[in-house]
Amino acid sequence: MINNFEFLIPTKIIFGKGTEKTVGEQIEPFGKNVLIHFGGNFVKDTGLLQSVTKSLEENNIHYEILDGVLSNPRLSLIRKGIQICREHKIDFILAIGGGSAIDSAKAIGIGTPYDGDVWDFFKGKLPVTETLPVGSILTIPSAGSECSNGTVITNEDGFYKRSVNYEIIRPKFAILNPELSYTLPAYQTACGITDMISHVMENYFTNVERVDLVDKLCEATIKTVIKNAAIVMRDPNDYEARAQIMWSANFAHAGMLSTGRVGDWGSHNIEHELSAQYDIAHGAGLAILFPAWMKYVYKHDMDRFVQFAVQVWDVDFYSYLTKEEIIFEGIKRMTRFFKDLGMPVTLEDAGIDESHFTLMAKKCVEDGPVGNFVKLDYEDVLAIYKIAAMSPQDKAN
Amino acid sequence: MINNFEFLIPTKIIFGKGTEKTVGEQIEPFGKNVLIHFGGNFVKDTGLLQSVTKSLEENNIHYEILDGVLSNPRLSLIRKGIQICREHKIDFILAIGGGSAIDSAKAIGIGTPYDGDVWDFFKGKLPVTETLPVGSILTIPSAGSECSNGTVITNEDGFYKRSVNYEIIRPKFAILNPELSYTLPAYQTACGITDMISHVMENYFTNVERVDLVDKLCEATIKTVIKNAAIVMRDPNDYEARAQIMWSANFAHAGMLSTGRVGDWGSHNIEHELSAQYDIAHGAGLAILFPAWMKYVYKHDMDRFVQFAVQVWDVDFYSYLTKEEIIFEGIKRMTRFFKDLGMPVTLEDAGIDESHFTLMAKKCVEDGPVGNFVKLDYEDVLAIYKIAAMSPQDKAN
Repeated sequence: MINNFEFLIPTKIIFGKGTEKTVGEQIEPFGKNVLIHFGGNFVKDTGLLQSVTKSLEENNIHYEILDGVLSNPRLSLIRKGIQICREHKIDFILAIGGGSAIDSAKAIGIGTPYDGDVWDFFKGKLPVTETLPVGSILTIPSAGSECSNGTVITNEDGFYKRSVNYEIIRPKFAILNPELSYTLPAYQTACGITDMISHVMENYFTNVERVDLVDKLCEATIKTVIKNAAIVMRDPNDYEARAQIMWSANFAHAGMLSTGRVGDWGSHNIEHELSAQYDIAHGAGLAILFPAWMKYVYKHDMDRFVQFAVQVWDVDFYSYLTKEEIIFEGIKRMTRFFKDLGMPVTLEDAGIDESHFTLMAKKCVEDGPVGNFVKLDYEDVLAIYKIAAMSPQDKAN
Repeated sequence: MINNFEFLIPTKIIFGKGTEKTVGEQIEPFGKNVLIHFGGNFVKDTGLLQSVTKSLEENNIHYEILDGVLSNPRLSLIRKGIQICREHKIDFILAIGGGSAIDSAKAIGIGTPYDGDVWDFFKGKLPVTETLPVGSILTIPSAGSECSNGTVITNEDGFYKRSVNYEIIRPKFAILNPELSYTLPAYQTACGITDMISHVMENYFTNVERVDLVDKLCEATIKTVIKNAAIVMRDPNDYEARAQIMWSANFAHAGMLSTGRVGDWGSHNIEHELSAQYDIAHGAGLAILFPAWMKYVYKHDMDRFVQFAVQVWDVDFYSYLTKEEIIFEGIKRMTRFFKDLGMPVTLEDAGIDESHFTLMAKKCVEDGPVGNFVKLDYEDVLAIYKIAAMSPQDKAN
């Protein structure tokens, strides 16, 4: 039965061509002293930073700049950001980039007004009750962090990747201009596509029954991504396809798809250990681990996996003898889709051997079992890493 | 190409069993002097009003009561509400009911701080810049007004039905408890179902191309409603089905399904004249007029109508010779669905003859042509009323 829930996404979306030029107006109601926070050279080299600072100056907004965000954003840079915010009395953080920049900004936001160390929140020591407001200009559609209530960061001291989820950290606005994703390298585009599909899947695999609307919205979202993924991989400058991907990534993780149900999120936890350990892209890790997770847990609710295969991957219900055949055909098509995108689909593809399996599995369940659809303990997580290690032929059954 | 857009739904949803008991807490941040506004006896007879006033009293919130809202809410009652709000220094309006109660509350909300007559806004004389905050407890899932930026009211002086749309009038919260819709009579349930499907269709029929995500979300929403409509008509106390209908009605009109595109809304305008003239339920009017509109305009974009037939009504693309056959099979299935719900599907079914066709058509286009997918002028609207008049057999081709 559908769960009771509250639902409110207070993040204003500004979507379309040229919208980044309005950033000063968007920030104006919230702050006058901005930290601009981003990663690589793209923001500087393309003139985006200049366009942003121009808009801030036109709105009499002062700014500081902190770049250097890496994928799997690091605690050390976040601590540095917190220092800058305190020193310069920053009252708004603008992230430019994708999930890493936004998650890093969110972490700086909650760390600045807190007397202790920001990692305390990620250790679950205390709840988040205060934050600097955050907004973003999205250049990498993937994580959905631009609207979400979560942030995931990496503590280099021991390679712990941990998340915090509070309504209060949802950003004030998100500027989504699909053109800003044109120059994203194919590999990063593919990682983003995998990540957004995974977010929908985490919501899809639930034990809550008769939640048709969200089930169907999930299927609709993944099918939209599948269709447009093929187009952007072929033509990176196709505005329409980039727009559908960007809006889908947002919808996938903004909140509608988790209403009334409990998502799984086990695969995300299992992947977090992988990317904390090996610093591989989150999306690539998911392309490897989600199919492995499916093979490990599908018996828990065969009908749901059949529905996924039929509704999302167009497997013909009547062309197979058993539910299991339908399910594995679905997994096969999904794996092939990831592969066609250029994703690794086994740990071997990513150059990862079994040497850290036990360590990662141990860390993964350090705070208790992961996953809600199926609760996974140490032995389960280890088994999933082992399935993910194998070559596709071996995995087919 | 997808249009630029801004998107923010600031209405907090509180969904599920027993949620109406939190109404005092929900209002508390916004006001201390509440007007409780509703229609029929249901609210009193079921104890809902008592439950609401108890929650208000527990939160030290004073209240006045104005009941008597009718479907197609009347300007005269709205004017009365405005007077009460001024006299009692009301600072929050709580609507209990469906679209009529909420639309009436919204109209009172914008009329109270305005020195002139509230009808001025509906005449388009001036923009809405101020309103009392509004919230609702939804008992009739249908109009989606609980989150929407619109209100539609009827001026009895000449039977004008007019709407106002401003972001500022989106309600602060909406309490959605599916149990509160159990006792809704079958006919009203059916009207609501027709109305919510129509909202999705108004968004669906657009000239904006390559808007896959929202297209697919539209299809998903209607299919969810179709599935669960059959269940609630059979078993009105099926919580799950009522819940899916209620959440779908909200999603249909909250805003996501109009992002990046221009919806049509011609059928709504044509229907408004019908229900202003004859005071029939809006949903019933739509069941009659939407199929007629489809038959009149389908040649404008056959591919879109084919997509609708195939994706929503499961018409098999390869079992028909021509696009036209597919389209008309889709319209036939939709009409049959409305009929099975107990809706009238011709004007004759509703006991309406052609005597006011010319008057209604004239009033409909008084402020210019209606519809965006296809612009409709006087002759077009008249032709649609004429198609709607005929019996289904005549209409089949």
